[in-house]
Amino acid sequence: MTPLDKLIAYFEKFPGIGARQARRFAFHILTLKPEQLAELSELITSLPKSVTECQDCHRFYSLTHQQNSGSCQICQDSNRDSKKLLIVARDTDIQAIERSGIYDGMYFVLGGTIPLLSNGDVSGKLRSGALRALIERRLKIGLAEIILAFAINPDGENTARYTEGLIREVPGAQLLKISELGRGLSTGSELEYADGETIKSALRNRS
Amino acid sequence: MTPLDKLIAYFEKFPGIGARQARRFAFHILTLKPEQLAELSELITSLPKSVTECQDCHRFYSLTHQQNSGSCQICQDSNRDSKKLLIVARDTDIQAIERSGIYDGMYFVLGGTIPLLSNGDVSGKLRSGALRALIERRLKIGLAEIILAFAINPDGENTARYTEGLIREVPGAQLLKISELGRGLSTGSELEYADGETIKSALRNRS
Amino acid sequence: MTPLDKLIAYFEKFPGIGARQARRFAFHILTLKPEQLAELSELITSLPKSVTECQDCHRFYSLTHQQNSGSCQICQDSNRDSKKLLIVARDTDIQAIERSGIYDGMYFVLGGTIPLLSNGDVSGKLRSGALRALIERRLKIGLAEIILAFAINPDGENTARYTEGLIREVPGAQLLKISELGRGLSTGSELEYADGETIKSALRNRS
Amino acid sequence: MTPLDKLIAYFEKFPGIGARQARRFAFHILTLKPEQLAELSELITSLPKSVTECQDCHRFYSLTHQQNSGSCQICQDSNRDSKKLLIVARDTDIQAIERSGIYDGMYFVLGGTIPLLSNGDVSGKLRSGALRALIERRLKIGLAEIILAFAINPDGENTARYTEGLIREVPGAQLLKISELGRGLSTGSELEYADGETIKSALRNRS
Repeated sequence: MTPLDKLIAYFEKFPGIGARQARRFAFHILTLKPEQLAELSELITSLPKSVTECQDCHRFYSLTHQQNSGSCQICQDSNRDSKKLLIVARDTDIQAIERSGIYDGMYFVLGGTIPLLSNGDVSGKLRSGALRALIERRLKIGLAEIILAFAINPDGENTARYTEGLIREVPGAQLLKISELGRGLSTGSELEYADGETIKSALRNRS
Repeated sequence: MTPLDKLIAYFEKFPGIGARQARRFAFHILTLKPEQLAELSELITSLPKSVTECQDCHRFYSLTHQQNSGSCQICQDSNRDSKKLLIVARDTDIQAIERSGIYDGMYFVLGGTIPLLSNGDVSGKLRSGALRALIERRLKIGLAEIILAFAINPDGENTARYTEGLIREVPGAQLLKISELGRGLSTGSELEYADGETIKSALRNRS
Repeated sequence: MTPLDKLIAYFEKFPGIGARQARRFAFHILTLKPEQLAELSELITSLPKSVTECQDCHRFYSLTHQQNSGSCQICQDSNRDSKKLLIVARDTDIQAIERSGIYDGMYFVLGGTIPLLSNGDVSGKLRSGALRALIERRLKIGLAEIILAFAINPDGENTARYTEGLIREVPGAQLLKISELGRGLSTGSELEYADGETIKSALRNRS
Repeated sequence: MTPLDKLIAYFEKFPGIGARQARRFAFHILTLKPEQLAELSELITSLPKSVTECQDCHRFYSLTHQQNSGSCQICQDSNRDSKKLLIVARDTDIQAIERSGIYDGMYFVLGGTIPLLSNGDVSGKLRSGALRALIERRLKIGLAEIILAFAINPDGENTARYTEGLIREVPGAQLLKISELGRGLSTGSELEYADGETIKSALRNRS
């Protein structure tokens, strides 16, 4: 295998990339200037050093000089409301929530979902232990509500049920309020094409 | 123009049908048996006699022997809650609401939407007068809430604002509760692809 | 079942139409004026009388006063070249060929294709006997080439092989030229996305 | 801008990649092992050294030990027919032609297309001079046919006309055969949806 083929093989493992686009990426690399190649290459090698996983919420965040406490900017921000904890499946979900601009609480990245139909127990891949430990710590400083923010599909709902069970086992968490993101009509929805469950929620959540 | 071409021209005016599919419809007609042709033809001619517009909600409904009061089955159903009135743009929207199985109030079909960007006043095409009259009548028998159920897009929102204004002008309607279908994550939604407005509503409507 | 439901059931059998669009067609019917309803209805009932199947090419054509010989306008047109016969699966394919404006020969509508994977012998549904008879008659007046014009997919190719076999069995047809539509790059094709077979043909047919 | 943001900015410039996928690529990088990071990084930096542009056909090819003549494997292959030269817009088009397995001539990568509607003269971005020089050299060793293999769309056709003019200006090239890839029905084509031009070509190229 030539270096070109090896590079294409790496690009083929990028999420959502097939053989043709991987090849096009390689041709794109050939159009870069030497200093760009050097910078891109350096950024890739050093990414794990400049980005680290937050010890509290477990999202990846960029390290800065001021900040090497092990916790990310959000987890360290004393203006955020530590009474609320919102649990998402993945890092990228946090961005979506932050874009909305109205959530002022804390986060936790579970690390994936539990497929409704899965062979064997896949819950081991999720950060169950870290979640339990975080809830115990936060209960001591006033945690009052946990918001489950998973996708509205069978896997997301299965993960919500699993996470709820996990929370309830934490000593002292029995009375914690557990909520889920509200369902209803999304932007762009037309009634005629909305399913029964969505309309049911939209009617209940009318305001 | 031959009869075939004339028939194709009729089919081309069917909603969502182009020249090719209209032609295919004509060929489909040619495969029907004489008794099917006669029945289809009769059903088309007599449809206006077997279906009528409800004088209250203005949806189309099939006439049955027991029922020739001018009002549809829903508007005559004494088990439904006449304190609630849900306003939709079109007939087909009522089916979507009924499919959800949890709405037990009354309906009104406005007859269309008011495009956000429209040349001239198109509100004349909507059943504004009939809506006003219905609200006046219903206020006397306890109408307490009007639910606006339009699409979550600029035209739907524009229509909601217009309808709200129209309702507030009805004498005695100033204190009427006016609600809109709740927004949030629809079935199938993934956080990563949800827009800010949808997530904002989903967070507010969490439960 | 109400007349409305019956009409919707008819529309659901129209090619490519589902439950929702069928219902919308019914609502469209309700918007027609009485004289339009009467005309549409009449056109449907009388279509079989105004359109007939050509006894030669078996396509449907509109009957006109001057023409009641049993053959369509194309089959009767003495300016067309009776040395060429182009065989298509369906009526609508003839329109596509005529649109191109360069074919001046005759046609035959086989009435369908033979799926590559089919349970039982489906060739009985095709007009094999009529094709054989037509070829015999045309051979006497100089038929020199038969063009097979089926889709470029497994079913189309299977139908081409079947039809070729059928032609070769006609007495006197052994030396008849049998051709197929040329393959190559279609309008809009980009090389990168073209399959090997298409490029092979495009290279062979270069000019 | 953090290193993470810088890396995402590089990925956003990859062909066909938007902000969200670029971010997902960065998270993918974080899942790689140190030795994979090192290898990917090295492959990127060294790609220009292991891949070079062929001085004859101008495609990129991987350098191997045996081969450092400046020409690629195809251009050096004495079994290939140097009487034929096939001109493509881009590198990736060569792969499509090679996949078909029936072309045994030489190639030239023009480096792009000339949009039908373009502001200013964009022909300067193409390898016009290199093409002229190659044709002159090849005419001396028997070049007999040039095949233009551009996309079947307005830009591709415009580029074909431009290239043809360019070829005719080369001294001694006036009698050279210039052909284009054959048009016709591509794999998967159905007659009903084929445009007039495609059917015209398919009829002319029947065989």
